[in-house]
Amino acid sequence: MSQKTQHLEKISRLLGYTFVEASLLESALTHRSFQASQSNERLEFLGDAVLSVIISKALFQQYPQATEGQLSRLRSSLVRRETLVEIAHYLQLGDYLYLGEGEIKSGGKQRDSILADALEAIIGAIYLDGGIIAAECCVLAWFKPKLAEIELNIETLKDPKSRLQEHLQAKKQLLPVYSVESIRDSTQMPLFKVTGSIPHTALSAVGTGSSRRRAEQAAAEALLKLIKHEN
Amino acid sequence: MSQKTQHLEKISRLLGYTFVEASLLESALTHRSFQASQSNERLEFLGDAVLSVIISKALFQQYPQATEGQLSRLRSSLVRRETLVEIAHYLQLGDYLYLGEGEIKSGGKQRDSILADALEAIIGAIYLDGGIIAAECCVLAWFKPKLAEIELNIETLKDPKSRLQEHLQAKKQLLPVYSVESIRDSTQMPLFKVTGSIPHTALSAVGTGSSRRRAEQAAAEALLKLIKHEN
Repeated sequence: MSQKTQHLEKISRLLGYTFVEASLLESALTHRSFQASQSNERLEFLGDAVLSVIISKALFQQYPQATEGQLSRLRSSLVRRETLVEIAHYLQLGDYLYLGEGEIKSGGKQRDSILADALEAIIGAIYLDGGIIAAECCVLAWFKPKLAEIELNIETLKDPKSRLQEHLQAKKQLLPVYSVESIRDSTQMPLFKVTGSIPHTALSAVGTGSSRRRAEQAAAEALLKLIKHEN
Repeated sequence: MSQKTQHLEKISRLLGYTFVEASLLESALTHRSFQASQSNERLEFLGDAVLSVIISKALFQQYPQATEGQLSRLRSSLVRRETLVEIAHYLQLGDYLYLGEGEIKSGGKQRDSILADALEAIIGAIYLDGGIIAAECCVLAWFKPKLAEIELNIETLKDPKSRLQEHLQAKKQLLPVYSVESIRDSTQMPLFKVTGSIPHTALSAVGTGSSRRRAEQAAAEALLKLIKHEN
């Protein structure tokens, strides 16, 4: 067995997936510093979307009561770079990457961005090789501890408006008032600007977003920060 | 056959997909103004991710030579709200939505955001009901003319740095110089700030991004706009 085959077999075992098309795995492990023409950047583009759909579905099914906003925040908290880097370390990905000499010397094997990108590329490669079910099995296995963790703190992931309301109710204060200041209609999407203010206090904050509700949430988030600073 | 069943059967024919679980389709058509508890917002969250992965894969396979940046720009140009609204109109979605009285009176059936969100919710519902292949068949059928259109203008979707370079070369001007002004390292991700300037001219512009390359592209994009305004 060639050294390359051995190398790919080892990482396959760590990933928990054996590729039909080994060249896809090779590509996924190839940083552009090693070979720009066959680098993992295109696979990373695909894998990023695959990861998002897998985590979205898992959250959708795991939290039947969660709102769209809560699901969205949970997803962001799961697919951020730190989590990907942690999983990449757990899978010992750094040892299996193809990097250019310069990158290796400057510690590229442990660089967060390189590890996270490679993990996304691997997810894209598994999807192309074995379909969404294969990708789902791997991703859910890797994310299992992360998905279990959020079970514990879903309460803290309530949307900002609800958190602000609960905070004010607990303090027997009046509830905030939101008013739309302006709506900018661009060809891309409208932009709402909303001011939220807490009656009988000097506290007010502005939020923007592509819908009135999103802008209100942003304003509530800003108000929560103001309150935190005050205390 | 009940009126509701007839209603759902008609829209199923237009969509080109028959649901095993009709309640999923019903949910996807339900705006929160009609019934907040069973509205389509959670399905929209899922459908947005499903749409992204389907279009990503289609572009990945259709353009084997495209870079990650080009694929990314092509995807944004395809999944933006205008395209979704166009497809929703083509599918006559407005006629099949469940909206509250107030929304109907204020023209909600033709409101862009309601139509685009409902289409994403339908994509999420098809995915849950029939899996990714079913969702892929529908989405690719709806997006077929759009995917064919971009074939023609992929040239215009070159990345900003390349376009700027080509523009300057054509005018026999010196090539731009990019320099990193600052790097802010937050816990989320680094933020690069790059200044691009065109030698022997007064033109310079700043771009920011999560990597040096992305910041340079943003600076190039800004320079292209400046040049356009000059002419």
